[in-house]
Amino acid sequence: MTTLETQTARALTDEEIFAAHEGGKLSIASARPLGTMRDLSLAYTPGVATVCQAIAEEPAVARTHTGIGDTVAIISDGSAVLGLGDIGPQASLPVMEGKAQLFSSFAGLKAVPLVLDVRDVDELVDTIAALAPSFGGINLEDISAPRCFEVERKLIERLNIPVMHDDQHGTAVVILAALRNAVALLQRELAELRIVISGAGAAGVAAVDMLLDAGARDIVVLDSRGVIHADRGDLTPVKQELAAKTNPRGVTGGVNEAFTGADTFIGVSGGSIGEEALKLMAPEPILFTLANPTPEIDPGLSRRYGAIVATGRSDLPNQINNVLAFPGIFHGALAANATAITPEMKLAASRAIAEIAAEDLDAGRIVPSPLDPRVAPAVSAAVQAAAQG
Amino acid sequence: MTTLETQTARALTDEEIFAAHEGGKLSIASARPLGTMRDLSLAYTPGVATVCQAIAEEPAVARTHTGIGDTVAIISDGSAVLGLGDIGPQASLPVMEGKAQLFSSFAGLKAVPLVLDVRDVDELVDTIAALAPSFGGINLEDISAPRCFEVERKLIERLNIPVMHDDQHGTAVVILAALRNAVALLQRELAELRIVISGAGAAGVAAVDMLLDAGARDIVVLDSRGVIHADRGDLTPVKQELAAKTNPRGVTGGVNEAFTGADTFIGVSGGSIGEEALKLMAPEPILFTLANPTPEIDPGLSRRYGAIVATGRSDLPNQINNVLAFPGIFHGALAANATAITPEMKLAASRAIAEIAAEDLDAGRIVPSPLDPRVAPAVSAAVQAAAQG
Repeated sequence: MTTLETQTARALTDEEIFAAHEGGKLSIASARPLGTMRDLSLAYTPGVATVCQAIAEEPAVARTHTGIGDTVAIISDGSAVLGLGDIGPQASLPVMEGKAQLFSSFAGLKAVPLVLDVRDVDELVDTIAALAPSFGGINLEDISAPRCFEVERKLIERLNIPVMHDDQHGTAVVILAALRNAVALLQRELAELRIVISGAGAAGVAAVDMLLDAGARDIVVLDSRGVIHADRGDLTPVKQELAAKTNPRGVTGGVNEAFTGADTFIGVSGGSIGEEALKLMAPEPILFTLANPTPEIDPGLSRRYGAIVATGRSDLPNQINNVLAFPGIFHGALAANATAITPEMKLAASRAIAEIAAEDLDAGRIVPSPLDPRVAPAVSAAVQAAAQG
Repeated sequence: MTTLETQTARALTDEEIFAAHEGGKLSIASARPLGTMRDLSLAYTPGVATVCQAIAEEPAVARTHTGIGDTVAIISDGSAVLGLGDIGPQASLPVMEGKAQLFSSFAGLKAVPLVLDVRDVDELVDTIAALAPSFGGINLEDISAPRCFEVERKLIERLNIPVMHDDQHGTAVVILAALRNAVALLQRELAELRIVISGAGAAGVAAVDMLLDAGARDIVVLDSRGVIHADRGDLTPVKQELAAKTNPRGVTGGVNEAFTGADTFIGVSGGSIGEEALKLMAPEPILFTLANPTPEIDPGLSRRYGAIVATGRSDLPNQINNVLAFPGIFHGALAANATAITPEMKLAASRAIAEIAAEDLDAGRIVPSPLDPRVAPAVSAAVQAAAQG
């Protein structure tokens, strides 16, 4: 174990955790000193009126002479927070503040945590659209499925700034990066994999889309009632869409039917998969068990059966951590003045993450460390190129 | 002239102004370094879940372990910005950023500029109420009258955190502070003054309320159509209320009728008062002409007729500047965990500002300098005492 891993492995105490949160985790301050009347006159009245008028005449001036050029809102309703579920807006604020720390530490972006006391999809959309002129981009966070899909879709339609629900796309980008490298190590092809995804929530749905965009062809999705297929009568609209674009072999049944002959498992459900299912897989499977803190497959079993294993945990190898994706994605989108985050930009981000790990590829290093300082700049550059291409 | 005044008097160039705005005027960053996996685990997953759960169980933990304990939202719809009027949300953002700089520089508070793309009163109220869990207090800014009155009233009813429209109450607090000291210098009594206020917008209405709360008895308010009195058939509901609580002598007519025998003028209208009206006033009047950059009375005339003169301008003596009030008011309200900003708290703030200038009172120094570092702590302490009293 490296020093970092040892540090993480030592249990966090409540005392340390609360100390790291005291007074909040962000600093917000004047970027320039206001020590003289002249400073005040430049930053506030009367000088500020000149900049206000310039923006009123030419809106693009707001990108260069207000904070919006590099400020992202991190917005949640607190309905699907970590493993805690629906804890409401204010109790979710520490997560949004933490995310804002990551935006600033990894990409030098300013991020503002906003937790909203509304739940109805249209009210959420209206509220977020109302405050959008204050920001250059919007990172939606921890909004429960299936509401998150509609909220994001409507905001993307309505706004001309990047909007991304990170639980969907950030996770999917890193999953794809890890899978590309796992496939390369095992000398397989993405298009030939038989992939099982357990979980048809935010991350599962986005992972399906990304994997298909990247060339995967055989994906079977499991929800709590079993394999999703078009003949099931209990599918929500989102799952009907999933059924239409997955499961080309027409698998029906449950976990065992899905796992039979599969060579890749991606768990984003929090459920539990037993040894029996693993025995039904093709040899040397890829096992991504991302539930946190308890992976869908016991880590000991994963090690025994899997050729390559990844989890969501920082104390195990190959952590699938969104922080590899979102700081660079937003940095690149804002730098490119992009009006949306397109599938091409996400694929480019995923490829950039994979390439950094590929420089030193190993079954225990298919993704870079979350602390690797090369990642965010590389992702940003790739996203900018894709945005402009 | 002091050095500071000389600096201000030298004209601001557009180049300097734009340079002071480049990239926005705020920094938002992680308050603690995130250099190790352990730092990440404490600030984000898995450590953050402990704090989320603590808040879900005991909401007061959010006051101490998120930023809300000292974070204020500065919210505008951009409908009444400086002298520029209705320039819309994004063009008003530099003003809100400037205000956030003042909050941080003068009171050490974190402030987030939010400009909203909604105009309907109830939509504004709903939007602001939705995002309120993210903040410890709400500073409304540059919302046009009469919408500002209803927006503020409804938010105060609905939320249990301090909400204040600064164009109303911040201005009124500083006007009263200045007037207390002017009255003391001239050995008069607030209760005996004959006060004319021109302007029945945000600042005028709030000034009337504060002056009455402080003991003033004879206030005549002018709008663009003349003296406000109960027999006028064209009064909005807000002006009907004004008519009911002002004008005890039943003055009717226009500027000349209002000014006849008056000893105090407070201009918050942007209109223009000529020499004829000044000749009708009682001897040695108090003249506060706060329109910016062009005072309601020409500064030369004010000097000739007035015993004590104040303006809104930084290059003239006695600047009535809200920055004397709002940083300390919000600091005190948040420190006291106040659920609202009461009239008593505003009176206490006003007294604290007046007392600092009273230590060195002179006709040219009835209010402290906006840069006086004693002001915000004194205002905060007075507001806290009033909140707890």
